Amino acid sequence: MSTEATANPLQARTRAELWSATRPWRRAGERIALVPTMGNLHEGHLALVTAARRHANRVICSIFVNPTQFGAGEDFDRYPRTVAADLAGLATVGCDLAFLPDPAAIYPNGLTDATRLVAAPSLAGVLEGAFRPGHFDGVVTVVARLFNLCRPDVAVFGEKDYQQLLIVQRLVADLGYPLEIIPLETVREAGALALSSRNRYLDEAARRTAVRLSEVLRDTAARVAADEAPHGELERAARDRLAQHGFRVDYVAVRRSTDLGVAQPGERGLRVLAAAWLGETRLIDNWPVA
Amino acid sequence: MSTEATANPLQARTRAELWSATRPWRRAGERIALVPTMGNLHEGHLALVTAARRHANRVICSIFVNPTQFGAGEDFDRYPRTVAADLAGLATVGCDLAFLPDPAAIYPNGLTDATRLVAAPSLAGVLEGAFRPGHFDGVVTVVARLFNLCRPDVAVFGEKDYQQLLIVQRLVADLGYPLEIIPLETVREAGALALSSRNRYLDEAARRTAVRLSEVLRDTAARVAADEAPHGELERAARDRLAQHGFRVDYVAVRRSTDLGVAQPGERGLRVLAAAWLGETRLIDNWPVA
Repeated sequence: MSTEATANPLQARTRAELWSATRPWRRAGERIALVPTMGNLHEGHLALVTAARRHANRVICSIFVNPTQFGAGEDFDRYPRTVAADLAGLATVGCDLAFLPDPAAIYPNGLTDATRLVAAPSLAGVLEGAFRPGHFDGVVTVVARLFNLCRPDVAVFGEKDYQQLLIVQRLVADLGYPLEIIPLETVREAGALALSSRNRYLDEAARRTAVRLSEVLRDTAARVAADEAPHGELERAARDRLAQHGFRVDYVAVRRSTDLGVAQPGERGLRVLAAAWLGETRLIDNWPVA
Repeated sequence: MSTEATANPLQARTRAELWSATRPWRRAGERIALVPTMGNLHEGHLALVTAARRHANRVICSIFVNPTQFGAGEDFDRYPRTVAADLAGLATVGCDLAFLPDPAAIYPNGLTDATRLVAAPSLAGVLEGAFRPGHFDGVVTVVARLFNLCRPDVAVFGEKDYQQLLIVQRLVADLGYPLEIIPLETVREAGALALSSRNRYLDEAARRTAVRLSEVLRDTAARVAADEAPHGELERAARDRLAQHGFRVDYVAVRRSTDLGVAQPGERGLRVLAAAWLGETRLIDNWPVA
């Protein structure tokens, strides 16, 4: 994260503050982009903001650790919260407004009696959704609120959370939101480890191992592209390699990029997706099949 | 319904048609009102459009018999569809645009794999919701789509469907839709029968009996206002009277107007709500406690 000295972005914590900040932009006909995040911003997030700038006059970055997308026993409580550093980071990439909603701005009637959304079952029931039941319902529940509150013309989502990206695109298509979703390629460290807030949970040794996840995905994608073996066999080989490196694997799956359906042999437009644990830390990543 | 000779309103059937009709209004800064209906318009609906005109420069009336709010065995198939008469009626009250969506404009990915909404449980689990499980989830699922597609500044809903009105107000509050919900008092025939598309299912004899529903509700509301007896006792008496008239009663309930909670003795701001069957026809109505 660069440390250029720039003023922190404007901040809004309530709906009223958000609307009083954005109303003049809308009146002036300016194009508004939204980058929804859970904070603990790294270069991947800042790349989303930079991309957003290319599509809009004004960029809102929301920072909200959304409780409804965490399951029981997941890391909601210990999820890293680093707002001061986040604001400093946003200042370096030209973010106009940081929306740091009070819980009541998102869930004005609390969590248990809220109007909520349920993601499209064919997309939300597989892969991440199979291991984190209800996760994507929480995602669309908060994203719909952010869309309504911020009323962006475009919103930028990273391919790191590839399944989430598809589900948000479906949310937009199904509900008819008048906005465009811009996907952005995953930002990676030199070793190809995908940037993730959860990398902070890893110690030095685990971080060295974590690099193997993207390595195995990249290799598997290459083997799929070369039609080396049936997908099931390549998935199994990838799981075995990850296990040998010390991962506890939730899944490695070769799927269609458009709808996460199981691909036929020889089909194009595929992606390899995986989730695996190192100790108490769960990592996800995915790689396109060229 | 008056038969003044006026041109039918503009019609849109697809999202593209809707947007091309409304874009110039939005660009010109005009205020847009939405009146969502299932068609088979009667004077009650036309009163909603007339009220909408008072709050906006442009009025959209949507006509869509929404399958997801009908339960198995309910009257989706036989629900009256009278589009030609509906358009003629709308022409008499100054409706600018009739949105008659193709199913794909509302459910572009079909019914079973759609992103959907779930209404706030405390409001949706009682009364109508207890007798029609999932009904209000279907209502918020379609209303959210109509809000996103039409992007109204105001939307008008009748008090006839009182529980629906509260649930839509909660949808707007919870999800942060930038629009105002205008409630409109129920329009009634001379005999005080609430206008309803389902009245068309009634034969002449049943229609004479149907009048008793509002009569009993009005009387019960007066007895609640006078603190004549505990609510439970007044509810029981109302059910008995309706049964004597030939109704099969689903419920008669004295509830708080704001949240449909069970009222304490002596509490103000109440409403009496009921649902009851005459033969195969289910009628609902409600009356405020003065």
